[in-house]
Amino acid sequence: MKILITSGGTAESIDQVREITNQATGRLGQVMAEIFLAAGHEVTFVTTKHALKPPEHDRLTTLLVSNVASLLEALEQQVPTHDAVIHAMAVSDYSPIYMTDFDTVANSDDLTEFLHAQNSETKISSNANYQVLFLKKTPKLISMIKKWNPETILIGFKLLVDVDKSELFSVARNSLLKNQADLIVANDLTEISGDRHIAYLVDHESEQRATTKQEISLQLLNYLERKEHQS
Amino acid sequence: MKILITSGGTAESIDQVREITNQATGRLGQVMAEIFLAAGHEVTFVTTKHALKPPEHDRLTTLLVSNVASLLEALEQQVPTHDAVIHAMAVSDYSPIYMTDFDTVANSDDLTEFLHAQNSETKISSNANYQVLFLKKTPKLISMIKKWNPETILIGFKLLVDVDKSELFSVARNSLLKNQADLIVANDLTEISGDRHIAYLVDHESEQRATTKQEISLQLLNYLERKEHQS
Repeated sequence: MKILITSGGTAESIDQVREITNQATGRLGQVMAEIFLAAGHEVTFVTTKHALKPPEHDRLTTLLVSNVASLLEALEQQVPTHDAVIHAMAVSDYSPIYMTDFDTVANSDDLTEFLHAQNSETKISSNANYQVLFLKKTPKLISMIKKWNPETILIGFKLLVDVDKSELFSVARNSLLKNQADLIVANDLTEISGDRHIAYLVDHESEQRATTKQEISLQLLNYLERKEHQS
Repeated sequence: MKILITSGGTAESIDQVREITNQATGRLGQVMAEIFLAAGHEVTFVTTKHALKPPEHDRLTTLLVSNVASLLEALEQQVPTHDAVIHAMAVSDYSPIYMTDFDTVANSDDLTEFLHAQNSETKISSNANYQVLFLKKTPKLISMIKKWNPETILIGFKLLVDVDKSELFSVARNSLLKNQADLIVANDLTEISGDRHIAYLVDHESEQRATTKQEISLQLLNYLERKEHQS
């Protein structure tokens, strides 16, 4: 199969120096790629400069992106030619619009002006005691994947923090429906540390538990190979 | 000499998943540490988990910090016992206070309420189309160093983006005065790429130009050894 994996985390710039990131290392994506390659599949690995990457391989293509905009561009091009998309990248959900000092905001009659403003400074000044940053929601790339390729098998990820299982599964099933995903890998940040990585492969009927990144990868491999056999 | 180098960049958390970082890699600090060690000095290297580090060495101690608060704690302990402090770390100048959706902010009668608010969610929800993040200035650690140790030689850094030389030097001299620094290494992001790294060692009278990280490090070594000889 030809499998597209997104891995690592995007960053959104506030200015030329500061950015908003998340703490994704890309370790799970790296393990998945190695296991899929070893099983004979072709892997396209979309990741960021500083994330962990699998070693070079004949059947591996690595593509670098930085933010949501460049990820969108890469996926729009790549998704149509892949049998499966495993969207494990931690995608920034908000992107900075404008940053200014608190007094300017407090003295404004209409805060919507800041939703259309743009910083002209290359590095925003750091004199004010308080600053206010306005952010806008980024496009939900996962919801576009089946539009770009209705035939592809779509596996999404959902990371929550310190919630109970029923909430985790319900959020995952909501994502299955909303994004026409085939499977959501649901995990909780409080259950990830070093090699231990508790995750649940959630579809409409069941949840399959895995406890390490290797186990998650092997279960996904098994799922994809069964799906391919069915179709 | 016993030299303290800070290197890399701090990160400030928005919640347990998102953080504000800067793009410092720690490469200059790594080169400085290697050159100072090779010249026979003792180096304490204060850096972050993901920044570049010098290889292990008998006369090297590496200390890890994450944000401004943990950096402050480390410096307060270490500065009193060092002959020189080279503060090359890119320190976050603002730290998140509170993040909420735009409508909540637009409907508030008194925005100062958000300067005292605190997010209780571990991962802030991503439903609203627009969000607003309130930030407060972090303590200026460089201004505390001579208070903790009036005898230490203090070398600070100033990074600006796309300014002319006269502004760069004037900002650097302002920092010399304000922080009782002995020398400021002034550089412009547009003049740093790969091995090329234009920087100016600015004191009250002169500016000495360097063009690579190696050259910056050797000029600083020379400066420190002359200073030590004078005292």
